[in-house]
Amino acid sequence: MKGTVGELGEFGLIRELTSRLTSTPAVQLGPGDDAAVIAAPDRRVVATTDVLLEGRHFRRDWSTAYDVGRKAAAQNLADIAAMGAMPTAVLLGLVVPADLPATWPVELMDGIRDECQVAGAAVVGGDVVRGDTITVAVTALGDLRNRPPVTRSGARPGDLIAVTGWLGWSAAGYAVLSRGFRSPRAFVEAHRRPEPPYHAGPAAAELGATAMTDISDGLVADLGHVAAASRADIDLRSAAIDVPAQMADIGQAVGVDPLHWVLTGGEDHAIAAAFPPDVKLPARWRVIGEVGPVAGRTPQVTVDGAPWETAGGWDHFGDRP
Amino acid sequence: MKGTVGELGEFGLIRELTSRLTSTPAVQLGPGDDAAVIAAPDRRVVATTDVLLEGRHFRRDWSTAYDVGRKAAAQNLADIAAMGAMPTAVLLGLVVPADLPATWPVELMDGIRDECQVAGAAVVGGDVVRGDTITVAVTALGDLRNRPPVTRSGARPGDLIAVTGWLGWSAAGYAVLSRGFRSPRAFVEAHRRPEPPYHAGPAAAELGATAMTDISDGLVADLGHVAAASRADIDLRSAAIDVPAQMADIGQAVGVDPLHWVLTGGEDHAIAAAFPPDVKLPARWRVIGEVGPVAGRTPQVTVDGAPWETAGGWDHFGDRP
Repeated sequence: MKGTVGELGEFGLIRELTSRLTSTPAVQLGPGDDAAVIAAPDRRVVATTDVLLEGRHFRRDWSTAYDVGRKAAAQNLADIAAMGAMPTAVLLGLVVPADLPATWPVELMDGIRDECQVAGAAVVGGDVVRGDTITVAVTALGDLRNRPPVTRSGARPGDLIAVTGWLGWSAAGYAVLSRGFRSPRAFVEAHRRPEPPYHAGPAAAELGATAMTDISDGLVADLGHVAAASRADIDLRSAAIDVPAQMADIGQAVGVDPLHWVLTGGEDHAIAAAFPPDVKLPARWRVIGEVGPVAGRTPQVTVDGAPWETAGGWDHFGDRP
Repeated sequence: MKGTVGELGEFGLIRELTSRLTSTPAVQLGPGDDAAVIAAPDRRVVATTDVLLEGRHFRRDWSTAYDVGRKAAAQNLADIAAMGAMPTAVLLGLVVPADLPATWPVELMDGIRDECQVAGAAVVGGDVVRGDTITVAVTALGDLRNRPPVTRSGARPGDLIAVTGWLGWSAAGYAVLSRGFRSPRAFVEAHRRPEPPYHAGPAAAELGATAMTDISDGLVADLGHVAAASRADIDLRSAAIDVPAQMADIGQAVGVDPLHWVLTGGEDHAIAAAFPPDVKLPARWRVIGEVGPVAGRTPQVTVDGAPWETAGGWDHFGDRP
């Protein structure tokens, strides 16, 4: 495809974007009308939305449009999974400059479509407008399959804290990229394109998870939300938290404790959950801590019994750590 | 409230915004978790999304934050109604500059909340990020109440075309504002804050509407989508289309045929629908035309049998008419 977004025009671009989409049986009416219609088999729908901005959440020189699409979809689909739901549909609000090559939004859409397919969902609608800053606003919907949603507020003292998915890989990849390197490739790839464990969310709900969250701001920060909502303390055991050897190497190279990435790096979209102590967890879950009664004035997350000093997570109005 | 968005911080702002929200029985889980849970009583959910940008879709010197909120919600909720559905929920993706007064997003949220209340919906979730251009991405959900969705594709030759709501008021108000005036007030208000006839959508579905659309790009343009999707021609009778006397006065003052505003002005979010010829329409619907077989190579919309030359609607990549 040649030319810019402006040359293609609004309707031309929308045609290009929608022509690339695939559907699923849950999509009863897809793009092209005033609104889409999606199945909600158990009479409820789970919904979440996130906005990504160029320069803030992605850089065009670091990530391809395709990877940005994968990531934008992934972070919303992971939120759906973290409620214990199966993702069903995605809507896209897109702001693009008129001088942007038309291939960019088209490849973005390919990425969103492919990530939706991984999660079992489909793109059902959207809006495209012209503006100065590339902005990708994604809304994801999901289906709870007759189970109650697993919120952040159900963790009880005695519950185990377990996690599945990647932790700290995206943050380590970011550290590599921000120092001008392009390898180790596995970490750079993890930064560009997270792989949330979508199926683990509904599986955890089925296993009786009492609380669950997607790790988007960092393990300690997101478990902090669980602790606060559940009015309970959470203590993590650092010995139970795996730091891959290669991540340790990067940490040494750039002078960062790799445990910092694992505890505070958010964008891998791992899933953390609290389970009753007698739960039998599948192999891909690692038990990394425990829920206790609130010991101080407010619920808190500790690591080996002490606060994790630098565990502020990512305040989107602050600067990148 | 004092200070800027940056001083309030991400979590402070989110607290302010969510504290102002109201709920409805359809909201099973509101803001504050990974995702919201909304009732979808008939096992389907209707979903649509739109993005508004400062400078492109609104101006801070012309509209208050509250009005922008009303408008952003209204245009999405109207899309839900135009499927024949009752709006249930809204999600908000918001980009705000750090130096924006914190009152702005707070009043925006008040506007979104109040418009949701008019339509019977509630805000259930969102995302707030820092960026240069104020961007308001709204997703709306709705419930079809066991009726099939009324798409754009079901109009049949012989059907009547009818419309309800305001037509051309926002465009006339825009013409007034863009010439530096602030009155006549009714039109300026209509531009700042549309009043879509939400209940008319489900009512039209109940009356047997064969096709329906929200008028967001202009009557002729949006009926063009109905014509194309239904593979039928639509002819409007100008004598049946009401031009209010005051709008005619403005037209004379600024040198514009007011019928142009009525036929091409979009942002009032009126609802147009096709009905079988024997329908008994409530008083607020005006029959303005008829569906016929495709006469030429492609389906088209005509006014008194002839193309409406300037009826391009609003291409969001082009300039404002």
